[in-house]
Amino acid sequence: MAKKNAFYAQSGGVTAVINASACGVIETARKHKKDIGKVYAGHNGIIGALREELIDTSKETAKTIAALRHTPSGAFGSCRYKLKSLEENRAEYERLIEVFKAHNIGYFFYNGGGDSADTCLKISQLSETMGYPIQAIHVPKTVDNDLPFTDNCPGFGSVAKYVSVSIKEAALDVASMCDSSTKVFILEVMGRHAGWIAGASGLAAQEEGDAPHIILFPEIAFDKAKFLKKVKATVKKHGYCAIVASEGAQYKDGRFLADSGQVDAFGHTQLGGVAPTLATMIKDELGYKYHWAVADYLQRAARHIASATDVEQAYAVGQAAVEMALAGKNAVMPGIVRGKGKRYSWTIQESPLEKIANVEKMMPRDYISRDGFSITEKGRAYFEPLIQGEDYPPYKNGIPQYARLKKVMVPKQLKIPFKV
Amino acid sequence: MAKKNAFYAQSGGVTAVINASACGVIETARKHKKDIGKVYAGHNGIIGALREELIDTSKETAKTIAALRHTPSGAFGSCRYKLKSLEENRAEYERLIEVFKAHNIGYFFYNGGGDSADTCLKISQLSETMGYPIQAIHVPKTVDNDLPFTDNCPGFGSVAKYVSVSIKEAALDVASMCDSSTKVFILEVMGRHAGWIAGASGLAAQEEGDAPHIILFPEIAFDKAKFLKKVKATVKKHGYCAIVASEGAQYKDGRFLADSGQVDAFGHTQLGGVAPTLATMIKDELGYKYHWAVADYLQRAARHIASATDVEQAYAVGQAAVEMALAGKNAVMPGIVRGKGKRYSWTIQESPLEKIANVEKMMPRDYISRDGFSITEKGRAYFEPLIQGEDYPPYKNGIPQYARLKKVMVPKQLKIPFKV
Repeated sequence: MAKKNAFYAQSGGVTAVINASACGVIETARKHKKDIGKVYAGHNGIIGALREELIDTSKETAKTIAALRHTPSGAFGSCRYKLKSLEENRAEYERLIEVFKAHNIGYFFYNGGGDSADTCLKISQLSETMGYPIQAIHVPKTVDNDLPFTDNCPGFGSVAKYVSVSIKEAALDVASMCDSSTKVFILEVMGRHAGWIAGASGLAAQEEGDAPHIILFPEIAFDKAKFLKKVKATVKKHGYCAIVASEGAQYKDGRFLADSGQVDAFGHTQLGGVAPTLATMIKDELGYKYHWAVADYLQRAARHIASATDVEQAYAVGQAAVEMALAGKNAVMPGIVRGKGKRYSWTIQESPLEKIANVEKMMPRDYISRDGFSITEKGRAYFEPLIQGEDYPPYKNGIPQYARLKKVMVPKQLKIPFKV
Repeated sequence: MAKKNAFYAQSGGVTAVINASACGVIETARKHKKDIGKVYAGHNGIIGALREELIDTSKETAKTIAALRHTPSGAFGSCRYKLKSLEENRAEYERLIEVFKAHNIGYFFYNGGGDSADTCLKISQLSETMGYPIQAIHVPKTVDNDLPFTDNCPGFGSVAKYVSVSIKEAALDVASMCDSSTKVFILEVMGRHAGWIAGASGLAAQEEGDAPHIILFPEIAFDKAKFLKKVKATVKKHGYCAIVASEGAQYKDGRFLADSGQVDAFGHTQLGGVAPTLATMIKDELGYKYHWAVADYLQRAARHIASATDVEQAYAVGQAAVEMALAGKNAVMPGIVRGKGKRYSWTIQESPLEKIANVEKMMPRDYISRDGFSITEKGRAYFEPLIQGEDYPPYKNGIPQYARLKKVMVPKQLKIPFKV
């Protein structure tokens, strides 16, 4: 059998360590040159395959590929694009096969979350459905930490570290000023559906009285009176109150706090965040001076404060994906399995994609305290190992030196462009 | 002459390195025990002196004091409180002298910005105006970088590093998603009166096309049409546009962009930031999908990514302040002087406080490009040395270990409390 090339692509919201997975895939493939030809990376995810826009990673030096390990975001470009079913859009699948054929692609590595697992699963079925032989392996990635069959998702540990370090630092700021100035600080973090990220910020509290004093989870219906009472009591006790609010914090009826009915001077709905909404509420009801921050992309791009554990795991799932392909696997995902011992350990294990695609893993209720404002010891025990270790990028002139790819495109073989 | 004690206090908005200055003051004073007695730190700045709330730093171990060097924010508490003039509030000065006398204080170190320099100057005049012998030395600190007679202000370099690292990372995120998702990202940074912090973010751009593509300075009147044209052109050229906006960005008539006349459902003025205001503007006029972040306190508390140069300078001005006191100086401030050579170097030099208090140093116009959207080579040459080097705090369980003080209070000597 002629040696096949591999296709690798990044999908969905990027993370601080998705490129570490790319590094794991490419470096491992390079070690098996007699079995795997070239690794072509999709320019902007699966869209790159549809458009026949393939980046030839063999044109990048070993040094550049190694630098991917410490480079945040998606170096090859990512996308938000979900393949429809075969029945709904057969043309897309036919196009993919054309492109794969034209470039002799026999391995498909897709690096993404739940939606992407679905795309990967559909590709894995091409042998059966369309008669095109391909092995598709899903490489897990998502700051949302909501994939099943993996103890945690690469990308999450680094966001967790960022938010816990950030709330710790900002809270020290507020603590030092609260006597005559700001008394309440609110940090808004990601997590529209689940409170994994907000919950991880609880790691900042290492001693009694430490911030965050209040965490707002999407899982716990927001109760304004109870919240304000807690804020007031905290300010009374500690002099200040540091809050971490998930962007998905919501009322009992499912209405997001951020959707506060605010309008601008022209009557447009104001797309305000949770943090300013809470700040205004606190000011109006309790009169405290406040500050708020919205971390947004900073949190998931913050490679400068990545978790070393997260980086290692991101690399490892990339490496394992290639090894699974070499072992003849298809329609699987390498997941992280936590060891049973008291000391944290982890291994990689494969799981079937059909059980993973489109399944969202929610945070267990018992990770959240009874009053709904903090994490339990059980939650802490889950989160803590994931932020262990620092893995600093190299700096030049005070700025991190992230990989800059040449991105040499593979010459197109097909005559007809495909519109996506 | 009996050995005198020293009073040290932190004032105004805190920084990632103000405690490094405290460390410089205390460690240096400890080296001169035959000349300086104990160092008493004001609890919450000058308010601590007025209330006779003094923290006995001699009760802290050498290890804890050393840890201040890597601990952000004001470990002894800071305040926003400016002494009135002697004529306006003589009682305050009489109280200070009572407290100083009761605790045998002969040295006064005040760690702050322009307003604090004014307080320090007034204290330095107590010998003359009230007959109480004291030497007052101002220790410079402010993220605003607006003190005169110093090339830069301790605290600024670390914010500068934070914002340039953050916009670099977030821009990589946007770049990787822009084909099918977010095209514009806006990071709001501090600087109500001057664009020093916004300007420093320009360091993130190390090659043609790098972010930030647009910087909005308070010094440059905001021109909506010109701004939107630049955003559009940038998206056209690079596929995305990363913007850093100073919170002080304003229209020609001095109206802040953040003050956009937005009202909530109850008719209250919406205290929105510049970033969401610009985001809404871009969405309405150009239709681009956007994201925005407001760094707020995160930027000035971010000790985890402090500039090593900044940390060294913060320590050095603390050390120099004590040495100046020992040399018999009064009403002076140790400032940073930049060497003339091509390679960055700096020394400490004293300047008279009367020339410093209440004077704001503005950013030179020639640090900003002609079109007003970026920094010039001259600006870059100024900013770049200030973010050099990384000075990481120690970590435990994935979280930075910042100093925890015992804060043993000096027993009060005075019968009558003083209301502040």
